[in-house]
Amino acid sequence: HCGSQSLTLSAVCFWTFNASGNLMDFLDEPFPDVGTYEDFHTIDWLREKSRDTDRHRKITSKSKESIWELIKSLLDAWSGWVVMLLIGLLSGTLAGVIDLAVDWMTDLKEGVCLSAFWYSHEQCCWTSNETTFDDRDKCPQWQKWAELMTGHAEGGGAYVLNYFLYVLWALLFSFLAVSLVRVFAPYACGSGIPEIKTILSGFIIRGYLGKWTLLIKTVTLVLAVSSGLSLGKEGPLVHVACCCGNLFCSLFSKYSKNEGKRREVLSAAAAAGVSVAFGAPIGGVLFSLEEVSYYFPLKTLWRSFFAALVAAFTLRSINPFGNSRLVLFYVEYHTPWYMAELVPFILLGVFGGLWGTLFIRANIAWCRRRKTTQLGKYPVLEVIAVTGITAVLAYPNPYTRRSTSELISELFNDCGALESSQLCDYINNPNMSRPVDDIPDRPAGPGVYNALWQLALALVFKIVITIFTFGMKIPSGLFIPSMAVGAIAGRIVGIAVEQMAYHHHDWIIFKNWCRPGADCVTPGLYAMVGAAACLGGVTRMTVSLVVIMFELTGGLEYIVPLMAAAVTSKWVADAFGKEGIYESHIQLNGYPYLDVRDEFTHRTLATDVMRPRRNDPTLAVLTQDSTTVEDVETLIKDTDYNGFPVVVSRESERLIGFVQRRDLTLAIKNARQKQDGVVSSSVVYFTEDAPQLPASNPQPLKLRRILNLSPFTVTDHTPMETVVDIFRKLGLRQCLVTRSGRLLGIITKKDVLRHMAQMMNQDPESIMFN
Amino acid sequence: HCGSQSLTLSAVCFWTFNASGNLMDFLDEPFPDVGTYEDFHTIDWLREKSRDTDRHRKITSKSKESIWELIKSLLDAWSGWVVMLLIGLLSGTLAGVIDLAVDWMTDLKEGVCLSAFWYSHEQCCWTSNETTFDDRDKCPQWQKWAELMTGHAEGGGAYVLNYFLYVLWALLFSFLAVSLVRVFAPYACGSGIPEIKTILSGFIIRGYLGKWTLLIKTVTLVLAVSSGLSLGKEGPLVHVACCCGNLFCSLFSKYSKNEGKRREVLSAAAAAGVSVAFGAPIGGVLFSLEEVSYYFPLKTLWRSFFAALVAAFTLRSINPFGNSRLVLFYVEYHTPWYMAELVPFILLGVFGGLWGTLFIRANIAWCRRRKTTQLGKYPVLEVIAVTGITAVLAYPNPYTRRSTSELISELFNDCGALESSQLCDYINNPNMSRPVDDIPDRPAGPGVYNALWQLALALVFKIVITIFTFGMKIPSGLFIPSMAVGAIAGRIVGIAVEQMAYHHHDWIIFKNWCRPGADCVTPGLYAMVGAAACLGGVTRMTVSLVVIMFELTGGLEYIVPLMAAAVTSKWVADAFGKEGIYESHIQLNGYPYLDVRDEFTHRTLATDVMRPRRNDPTLAVLTQDSTTVEDVETLIKDTDYNGFPVVVSRESERLIGFVQRRDLTLAIKNARQKQDGVVSSSVVYFTEDAPQLPASNPQPLKLRRILNLSPFTVTDHTPMETVVDIFRKLGLRQCLVTRSGRLLGIITKKDVLRHMAQMMNQDPESIMFN
Repeated sequence: HCGSQSLTLSAVCFWTFNASGNLMDFLDEPFPDVGTYEDFHTIDWLREKSRDTDRHRKITSKSKESIWELIKSLLDAWSGWVVMLLIGLLSGTLAGVIDLAVDWMTDLKEGVCLSAFWYSHEQCCWTSNETTFDDRDKCPQWQKWAELMTGHAEGGGAYVLNYFLYVLWALLFSFLAVSLVRVFAPYACGSGIPEIKTILSGFIIRGYLGKWTLLIKTVTLVLAVSSGLSLGKEGPLVHVACCCGNLFCSLFSKYSKNEGKRREVLSAAAAAGVSVAFGAPIGGVLFSLEEVSYYFPLKTLWRSFFAALVAAFTLRSINPFGNSRLVLFYVEYHTPWYMAELVPFILLGVFGGLWGTLFIRANIAWCRRRKTTQLGKYPVLEVIAVTGITAVLAYPNPYTRRSTSELISELFNDCGALESSQLCDYINNPNMSRPVDDIPDRPAGPGVYNALWQLALALVFKIVITIFTFGMKIPSGLFIPSMAVGAIAGRIVGIAVEQMAYHHHDWIIFKNWCRPGADCVTPGLYAMVGAAACLGGVTRMTVSLVVIMFELTGGLEYIVPLMAAAVTSKWVADAFGKEGIYESHIQLNGYPYLDVRDEFTHRTLATDVMRPRRNDPTLAVLTQDSTTVEDVETLIKDTDYNGFPVVVSRESERLIGFVQRRDLTLAIKNARQKQDGVVSSSVVYFTEDAPQLPASNPQPLKLRRILNLSPFTVTDHTPMETVVDIFRKLGLRQCLVTRSGRLLGIITKKDVLRHMAQMMNQDPESIMFN
Repeated sequence: HCGSQSLTLSAVCFWTFNASGNLMDFLDEPFPDVGTYEDFHTIDWLREKSRDTDRHRKITSKSKESIWELIKSLLDAWSGWVVMLLIGLLSGTLAGVIDLAVDWMTDLKEGVCLSAFWYSHEQCCWTSNETTFDDRDKCPQWQKWAELMTGHAEGGGAYVLNYFLYVLWALLFSFLAVSLVRVFAPYACGSGIPEIKTILSGFIIRGYLGKWTLLIKTVTLVLAVSSGLSLGKEGPLVHVACCCGNLFCSLFSKYSKNEGKRREVLSAAAAAGVSVAFGAPIGGVLFSLEEVSYYFPLKTLWRSFFAALVAAFTLRSINPFGNSRLVLFYVEYHTPWYMAELVPFILLGVFGGLWGTLFIRANIAWCRRRKTTQLGKYPVLEVIAVTGITAVLAYPNPYTRRSTSELISELFNDCGALESSQLCDYINNPNMSRPVDDIPDRPAGPGVYNALWQLALALVFKIVITIFTFGMKIPSGLFIPSMAVGAIAGRIVGIAVEQMAYHHHDWIIFKNWCRPGADCVTPGLYAMVGAAACLGGVTRMTVSLVVIMFELTGGLEYIVPLMAAAVTSKWVADAFGKEGIYESHIQLNGYPYLDVRDEFTHRTLATDVMRPRRNDPTLAVLTQDSTTVEDVETLIKDTDYNGFPVVVSRESERLIGFVQRRDLTLAIKNARQKQDGVVSSSVVYFTEDAPQLPASNPQPLKLRRILNLSPFTVTDHTPMETVVDIFRKLGLRQCLVTRSGRLLGIITKKDVLRHMAQMMNQDPESIMFN
């Protein structure tokens, strides 16, 4: 959705269909390019599956011939697991490297480690002797830029200098990121999830998952995140993992030569991507199943799980967070939640739903404006401007200055006894013994009130700036900013409820569950619930969202609050519009994506959708034994359809098969060159036996070999709802329409999409022609 | 698979097909029974979906008319969630009640609580003052039968009396169970999972999920488990939950009148069943997705998750285990695992795979013998005999005497400092301080060696007796016995490795990771891995198995060992035969189940499978405007096909639609009664306009209303592999075969199943006709 693909998309011809699987064709493989697809075309799932079965059959029958063939067949059977292992290893490693680099470069904006410049702030101070967290933050090895350059750590001058350098570094990083994307890999921008969804649904975008994209996306992701822009690395990590998957596919002809099998690998790679993004392997698999994948057989489920686990363990071995934790935000709460708390949780859900709706509408409106106005012509300038604004506004507020994942981490945390952050500045009762794990509710100190103000400002800032950030020409994920918005809102609500409960034990709503001196409310949990609600509102994830959150906390304890918020948020957001941010971007870019979740409930019939329409010229067909080579060549020249139905005769219109444009062109070219006697007036025939022709006629040309004898047909009375279902479940490219055995017309996947858009009162022209 | 259904199945007629969804028919609903199915027939998924869309459309358009209709439409939209909530509540409650009752009745075989006879042993001794676990077991309130009756707790006489009463109680329980099943609900036997899989794939078995089955299965499950037979409650709990689901479906016409929608609810109920069986909601959802369900849209995923969570929390509120734990076997280990341990884990996986194969083969052979010989005629006697043998052999061995879940629980446990069981009888080093959590490896004491012998005997006993137990006419689950076999084997291996590591620190295989005085090996983990391997070998579960085990331990730490064992076990077992125990039982009973996982790779075409075959009489068809009422009536009388294709004329054989036998019968009966002038020689026509007939002819009868104008067709050249895919994905009942627009024949779901069985060299007659 970063603009460049859609330009190319308009080059796609009108009907992009090919014949569906014909067994004979692929065993003979008559011409070199048969069975591949052109860029921006839709694949035929049935044909891919059929080709794979043929390949498998061949290998199995050969394996009985010799030991070597047997070994080859075993290697083939194992290649799926090998690919999964490699994907897991590489995507885990890349995620670890990205984490380390982001950590270092984020801190580089503020200062440098004197003992070793490649250390991040935290790594630099690990060896420090200070004991409390607060002091350790200020370890002498780590110096801010101003201190290093002028020798003064404090004072107005130092602040201005630090501020200036912070903005400068941010601008430098983002400029580098956008330039690299512009020059080397235009596909490396955005989150990549909308495009991956489209690709997995059976569309070809060449180079989108290429080596070049992999390299540039990895590098620019580090730069973009380090620049402090309001974006995350989770979505792009899925893209990176899918690039790894595509890379390893090319090692095995089983996957590289079959677009269907390749998509099975990519589904698993997406799971590995989420697995390393959050350290949540089960959540990753469910995310792939629920959100990204189109065709997800059980075999893929099992392999995805394997890839996700390998990736998670590789990441843990690299240990980028330095705490042996697998998960990004590990939390442990000490207090259960109470029924009455469901009210604020549900309110957070409502907030999440509203934020989701607002964000999607505003972001889509802005992206549309970018596409249609002059704005889209200056992507570098746009990135620079947004980075400048972000950096200038973010620096003064400690909650926006630091990296967003650190912010979320702090907001999720429960205030333990050793916590020294501003958010944990409660007034302690000096008479009370303080066990580490069970601290009662306390009145908030000035630090907390101060933090509340800063958080409120950060909330407004994040909400506004994220709308303008997502969709720029740099890698940008949406998970982290959405979660940050929710976590800030949740923490504010949590502190409010906590203080109310502390100061008003006797209120009827608190009376039953909150005794004085007890630890009733955990503001960190509210932050977590809020994060889940906002993420749910934007992406409309359901099960995978709850499972990811469950894997973060590791206990079933808090599933009910998370689920309540997620359900509410989805319902509220769905009330304003069914589409999540990814579907909206798919629609904005006009990708031919047939959503599994869209329910088509209109009462139209196949006859209303098929082409030719009432006033169109009749359907371009071939006859089985009366078309000449010249007729065929004229037809190919005059039309740009990707295939032609073959009928018995123009009068009877009885369908016998379907032939692909590309095969036809190749076959005639081949025959003209190699077969004697084939001239323009030769008759082309698709029957078993040559037609009876006068002896004076030139030699006829037999083309049965390229004819698909099992084209998919429906009758003109078939409800469109059934047609949509068939297209979706069987992954068709086109379907012929008949009435009482006579051919009437054709429906392609794009006709179906266009019709669905029309019925939903959207602009039908936006599909594929933007 | 308990024998009775298959008898009824042979009554199923040869071709059971109905027309697929015709929009018009269901809006008019011309006759009362249209759209329902007969018992033991296959449903048409496309038609069910189409009917639901129509219903939805009606409600949506009505909702704009009045407030009342709007409220009704909102209630309709919410009914799905209400059903889920009710299923969760009821199945959670039932599971809790079953757990409590089983606990009490299992202990009743050995003794009784004097302070309150309805207390189980553990509950009885809760209030006791003894501190160690060992003493608490012998609290004075709990008396064994011999002690109560004779006053002597010890001695040979008391032992014999206790032994005798143990066997007597077991026989009484199992006799009650089998009698109740025989008299009230024959469908209540077995695990129910094979039948539920079949039902979910779109088959009708009336009464299988009825109220009566629910009641009897719940009661007899308690009796069967308490009798000490080698069976578990997990499978039957899935059946019970599905009965609850079916029960609540009947409250809402949305679900009760639509077999497709009903199956969505049942899928979710299955998830709730596993959720309460193990306290693993995510595992339950994945089990339903992977193992049980056929059509599992994303909406169902989300709702299943909700139902599973509600059920788990209801169960926890009942708290049957008295420990506030959600899960059946909660474990916490203190030591990590080491790479070298993967070798024994993989060996356990091999064992699990071998056990799975052995069990499936032996059990199926035994069940086949039961079906085909005199044995099947005495189910009560069989149950009594097996219970007698089980009880007599089980009592002397302490590991088989107790309930199997207690045994598994003990085997999974790590030996803590306070553990006093025989299995934890290690020789302690008196000089060592003993922290509770970190006990180093110690030499085994005599108790452990004694336990090893007893466990080995228990292993052999369990392996043999389970083969004969599963498939008897009482509720019997397979999860617990399989896990027990694996846990015993695993624990034995674990202790062996532990002792080897202790005594031979210097061996090269231990040198690198096991220092003297360290806690290297956790035998409990081996038991867990063994249990996973055996369960995987029998059921061929993959992801759901690992996730259930993960939920038991609650940590990602041990996923790799579990996964290694599960993968190995599946590979080993698959090498001997692809089918798990459930698929084997489906096949044994000849249910028409089209497995999603079976890959059809043969090169046959639709023309090889379709009927009529070469020497059969021609296909029974109707013509669109030249058949008389009498002809139709003769056709209906002479054939038992469930539907007839309608063609333009017998000469042209051009297909125009498909009409159902039932609709045809009803329509003609209706017309004869109500429509004047319709006599035997009246022409029946399916066209829009009446045919031009001589004036002397009687009034023709228009039947277009019952004609399905969009029958599903394929060409005769379509590969069967594609046809199988279409049947599977679209849930068809039948499909017409054409060539160049001419009707050639018909393929039904049963033809497909028969052909697949033939191709796999199985006995084709076993499908549906055993």
